[in-house]
Amino acid sequence: MGQALAAAFLAKGHPTTVWNRSAGKAEKLVGNGAVLAESAKGAVEASPLVVVCVSDYDAVHALLDPIGSSLEGRTLVNLTTASSTQARDAAVWADRLGIAYLEGAILGVPQDIGTDTATMLYAGSGTAFEKHQATLEALGDAATVYLGEDHGLAALYDMSVLTIMWGVLNSFLHGAALLGTAGVKATTFADMAVTAINVSADYVTGYSQQIDAREFPPTDATMNVHLGGMQHLLEESEALGVNTDLPKFFLKMVHRAVADGDAENSYASMVKQFRRK
Amino acid sequence: MGQALAAAFLAKGHPTTVWNRSAGKAEKLVGNGAVLAESAKGAVEASPLVVVCVSDYDAVHALLDPIGSSLEGRTLVNLTTASSTQARDAAVWADRLGIAYLEGAILGVPQDIGTDTATMLYAGSGTAFEKHQATLEALGDAATVYLGEDHGLAALYDMSVLTIMWGVLNSFLHGAALLGTAGVKATTFADMAVTAINVSADYVTGYSQQIDAREFPPTDATMNVHLGGMQHLLEESEALGVNTDLPKFFLKMVHRAVADGDAENSYASMVKQFRRK
Ligand SMILES: NC(=O)c1ccc[n+]([C@@H]2O[C@H](COP(=O)([O-])OP(=O)(O)OC[C@H]3O[C@@H](n4cnc5c(N)ncnc54)[C@H](OP(=O)(O)O)[C@@H]3O)[C@@H](O)[C@H]2O)c1
Ligand SMILES: NC(=O)c1ccc[n+]([C@@H]2O[C@H](COP(=O)([O-])OP(=O)(O)OC[C@H]3O[C@@H](n4cnc5c(N)ncnc54)[C@H](OP(=O)(O)O)[C@@H]3O)[C@@H](O)[C@H]2O)c1
Repeated sequence: MGQALAAAFLAKGHPTTVWNRSAGKAEKLVGNGAVLAESAKGAVEASPLVVVCVSDYDAVHALLDPIGSSLEGRTLVNLTTASSTQARDAAVWADRLGIAYLEGAILGVPQDIGTDTATMLYAGSGTAFEKHQATLEALGDAATVYLGEDHGLAALYDMSVLTIMWGVLNSFLHGAALLGTAGVKATTFADMAVTAINVSADYVTGYSQQIDAREFPPTDATMNVHLGGMQHLLEESEALGVNTDLPKFFLKMVHRAVADGDAENSYASMVKQFRRK
Repeated sequence: MGQALAAAFLAKGHPTTVWNRSAGKAEKLVGNGAVLAESAKGAVEASPLVVVCVSDYDAVHALLDPIGSSLEGRTLVNLTTASSTQARDAAVWADRLGIAYLEGAILGVPQDIGTDTATMLYAGSGTAFEKHQATLEALGDAATVYLGEDHGLAALYDMSVLTIMWGVLNSFLHGAALLGTAGVKATTFADMAVTAINVSADYVTGYSQQIDAREFPPTDATMNVHLGGMQHLLEESEALGVNTDLPKFFLKMVHRAVADGDAENSYASMVKQFRRK
């Protein structure tokens, strides 16, 4: 990922100094015009904007703690995957050292960087984001998003987007497995699956308004109606010998919602169950 | 639902005879031009096309078993929610009695019937579908879909579409709960959630091709990469005190896939886990 980030800066003509623990990985970048620093300290001191992207936060600390004073007065953008707690703790550390700090999350794979398929999320210092936004846009052509001053937001949005992705993919695969028992090809199901996904997305706007208003009128179906359908799904999955973990999870949640008095409310009322263990 | 179905036939000018166990429910339909039959037998004998929609299959059998011979030579469309096994068993029963049989599933609520937001699924006798397609289109303006000769397909597609709906909604609500811990409103998250849903839908086409080809090259991310992300999601959910059942389900499935040798394959290889208990 570090190589993809540096390559994207270079491609947009930004003077770029690079450093990597294993030096060999920088060779191609140097061939494309990057300056190779001799040390992490040298790389940091070369620019007003420092971007770090390593395996995890242990690596971030191993790398930056010894050279914290070199970062003073610069902007540090940390694109290493973090939890919101790690991000907020790092922000306290950066603040103490006088570092303008942005915490970032990458929605995409290295090949997406610098194209319009990467979404780059940033949270933390709004001043730092404004100052370097034009440069950072080299990484995500179409979507470079500033989320707010709370440094934990990049991690939280990242996780929220990922849970949606796995939610969609798993349920599609469960459907494909159900239909597979009748010899229906996944490619035959695909069009209707995409329609079902899009129709479900249409509920998000209305449900999010209900969540913020804390009122859950059953404008479509009640939780009790969903419960009935989920029981069918469990029975069908059991009868056909396909996986039952997903319907069991659905039912566990909806039973909790019904026990909490939401039987005649909309599915949006289920947010209360997701808010607690 | 029965009232909505009859109303939609009447609205499109189809002569319609109605019957319901509790007679009062037909009054409004009669006011709109429906003929009220004195018995289920009378209703069946009034038309070449008979549509039944009652609570469940016990009700279907209680209603139709005694008047099976009246159905001979007619087309019966059963829109009562069924399992694929119930539907296939009913098809055997219909075949024995010389009834042309279609099993249907309704994707929508009563208000959707007769509008372009209802999707009506049909499976079973292709001849019967062709014969009555124009009439049946009164129920679902835009989407009246014939799935094939296997009577179980309507139930299977119905369940597959519903599992997707719950998969999408639950993961959106989990994301909203995560972001809610940082005071982010659901309406603030909604736009990015919809984008995430749409981006996930884009994977369905490619993944369905992999499933049919039984080859799972990791064109985007490997299962191992997903595993790492899911561990983050679990830790984040635990640390913030939000529900952990969804990440635990994700992890259970991906651990199974890794144990099955799919660590370096694409997420589409997970279909194998959904195919088995
Ligand atoms: N790849 C993706 O698709 C993707 C997508 C979104 C987010 N991310 C995030 O981006 C970050 C990097 O991922 P990656 O795919 O680039 O991983 P990677 O290929 O494993 O690279 C890890 C990098 O971290 C360096 N590193 C590890 N420990 C270090 C230490 N103690 N001191 C100095 N450097 C150290 C490695 O240096 P050496 O070369 O010397 O080992 C290497 O440059 C991760 O946080 C990941 O979650 C990746
Ligand atoms: N409502 C929806 O949003 C929706 C969406 C998709 C599919 N469906 C399916 O549509 C079917 C009907 O649902 P609904 O919402 O109309 O349910 P409902 O309002 O509870 O109506 C049930 C109907 O079944 C009749 N019935 C029940 N047992 C009977 C028996 N032994 N003999 C004769 N009639 C009997 C009832 O007659 P009485 O009036 O005399 O009680 C009533 O007409 C169900 O299979 C449901 O899963 C409904």
